[in-house]
Amino acid sequence: MTFEEMWRELTPVGRAASGGYHRQPFTAAERECHAWFLAQCAARGLAVRTDGSGNVVAWWRPDGSAGPGVVTGSHLDSVRDGGAYDGPLGVVSALAAIDRLRERGFTPARPIGVAVFVEEEGSRFGTACLGSRLATGLLTPEAARELRDRDGVWLADAMAEHGLAPVASDLLDDVATFVELHVEQGRALVDRDAAIGVASGIWPHGRYRFDFAGVADHAGTTRMEDRRDPMLTASMTVLAANKQARLHGARATFGRIEVTPNGTNAVPSQVSAWLDARAESGDALETLVAAIAQQARDRAGRDGTECTVTPESVTPAVRFDPDLAGLLATGHADGDWPVLPTQAGHDAGVLALAGIPTAMLFVRNPTGVSHSPAEHAEMADCLAGVAALADTLERLAGP
Amino acid sequence: MTFEEMWRELTPVGRAASGGYHRQPFTAAERECHAWFLAQCAARGLAVRTDGSGNVVAWWRPDGSAGPGVVTGSHLDSVRDGGAYDGPLGVVSALAAIDRLRERGFTPARPIGVAVFVEEEGSRFGTACLGSRLATGLLTPEAARELRDRDGVWLADAMAEHGLAPVASDLLDDVATFVELHVEQGRALVDRDAAIGVASGIWPHGRYRFDFAGVADHAGTTRMEDRRDPMLTASMTVLAANKQARLHGARATFGRIEVTPNGTNAVPSQVSAWLDARAESGDALETLVAAIAQQARDRAGRDGTECTVTPESVTPAVRFDPDLAGLLATGHADGDWPVLPTQAGHDAGVLALAGIPTAMLFVRNPTGVSHSPAEHAEMADCLAGVAALADTLERLAGP
Repeated sequence: MTFEEMWRELTPVGRAASGGYHRQPFTAAERECHAWFLAQCAARGLAVRTDGSGNVVAWWRPDGSAGPGVVTGSHLDSVRDGGAYDGPLGVVSALAAIDRLRERGFTPARPIGVAVFVEEEGSRFGTACLGSRLATGLLTPEAARELRDRDGVWLADAMAEHGLAPVASDLLDDVATFVELHVEQGRALVDRDAAIGVASGIWPHGRYRFDFAGVADHAGTTRMEDRRDPMLTASMTVLAANKQARLHGARATFGRIEVTPNGTNAVPSQVSAWLDARAESGDALETLVAAIAQQARDRAGRDGTECTVTPESVTPAVRFDPDLAGLLATGHADGDWPVLPTQAGHDAGVLALAGIPTAMLFVRNPTGVSHSPAEHAEMADCLAGVAALADTLERLAGP
Repeated sequence: MTFEEMWRELTPVGRAASGGYHRQPFTAAERECHAWFLAQCAARGLAVRTDGSGNVVAWWRPDGSAGPGVVTGSHLDSVRDGGAYDGPLGVVSALAAIDRLRERGFTPARPIGVAVFVEEEGSRFGTACLGSRLATGLLTPEAARELRDRDGVWLADAMAEHGLAPVASDLLDDVATFVELHVEQGRALVDRDAAIGVASGIWPHGRYRFDFAGVADHAGTTRMEDRRDPMLTASMTVLAANKQARLHGARATFGRIEVTPNGTNAVPSQVSAWLDARAESGDALETLVAAIAQQARDRAGRDGTECTVTPESVTPAVRFDPDLAGLLATGHADGDWPVLPTQAGHDAGVLALAGIPTAMLFVRNPTGVSHSPAEHAEMADCLAGVAALADTLERLAGP
């Protein structure tokens, strides 16, 4: 089955009428994607290993291959109302790259694996790269068991429905090198007129829950000066985050807000808002978040509300193996591939933090839009990505 | 059954562990309140009439009473996470007042009715005083059939589950006078050291949906200057509403916000926020809302977003019958009851707009807090309310 055929099969799964994707982990749509992947692995005779948390590595171990392997892959879950490419492009390209290598008659000296990690986006349980964090030990099963989704469902219960549980794993023990192909989530490749790029590193980033507590009251009868309205504090904090990010050359977003009781004619008792913050260095990130939290607390003092800030997940800066990045980027007939940093988190970043030599390939995104139904990559660039990944695997797993 | 006994029976229904009430219309908790009310009416031998929408008037028509009647009552639904008193106090006091009149051996010259109206708060279908608007014809059944709750359930479907439908009604045709007793939702009576007050009128008020449309994108990779983030426009509008209300001596609240897709790592594509606005006059209300909408549109222009404003329900100023208010407030052994305006909407206001001579009694609220689990009235004041209502009914329905 060609890349185009695989893409066509996977595309309708979890797509809403509006065109947006809803493939939250351990839901029917995401499980259907996994089942589709397992069927593709079976059709190729790959040896599937699944760990207890649902992460998968499907191995191609032909005669003559030995030792720790070269693994590529990505994830199949999406953000809420997301795009088709973020995650699945890396998985489908990995399968297509193995087909390409077999067509070339290439026999790897090391096994080649295709990995799929669960809950990369953190769109359901709040912790990004949940699967790869569990698989690398960067997140303990005990900590994972504390996680609940926004409907109050425990991670362990959601997993148990599919015979899974948040557990430690030896799935990555025989991985010598990891390469993740991913659609670019910015316009750096468009600006450089390049179809393929290589990642140098990932900005440090974190998610922080801001809880604003006030006093519920009647929206009509309560005088403005008697209110303790947490919506005001939250609103000022949203604007402050935007301003601080601009001042610091960083990124800060409040994309999620939950209001209690969320009624039109009641001053809210509580507003919770989630800050996504990213900056060039760990120090810059700390400075940014501290500045936002300070403005939030100052305003809370004036509003008669209370503000508490809880970091939900903070990922340090990732520097991908520079020798590996250099190896991937150079020696091509049509010139070097650009090497760029990214502000987006990835399973590859988690594996790099866990000490596995890791690299990333980016495929050009014509608008740079991501985490949106409008996310896109041209088919020609996707096929260039498959070729680039096949070449990379050949270099890394060759004799 | 005494007032205290009735209150004790009704108190646990729809109360969450946190103490807040969730008696949204056509849910199990609210229907349980209605069933309880019908059982109380049966125990008193009242003749129950229910209209097709679920509004009820239970009549006491002893021999010797004739002609159009005097009706009292209120509602049994609550806001989300509301208090125990807003609505039920008027219903339970009405039943207790009839008991009081019977104990006194009073025989009314006119029938006396106890009314319960459905969906007074508008907490589920967005239109406050839905039941009384349908019963008076101020809302057409056709318009009501357009209403959906936040889960997309049509009003007609929610009603049909209980054998009801949004329909016109003749339930109020034989009502000569309506009196609603209600817990006060401010501190005017506390300030005046009075247990009971009489309403002079209700400020005009409205609900307006502000839809802010932007462009979904990745929270990490999208440069701040490339964003079209509707959360920024919404946040500035929340702050602008507060400021404008203070400037105009009015009330403006954004208590409800819905974000799409509401994910931590995605710039939202859409934010909807509901403005509750109230002012002393219709002109003042229009000026207030226009000023807020103008600031929202100005900011949308700067954010690259779009803002549309839809009035969902606007209720003009209500002036209760001044002769009736004067009659109720005066001639008491312990001095006149204060006559006060209120900023809260009530079924009594709808009936007054529909031309029925209408009055309201308020029972002191020690903190003024309402639409909150902390809403409260002292039992002694509740009993003073029952006595005041019984005296009022005796005056209005007497020979």
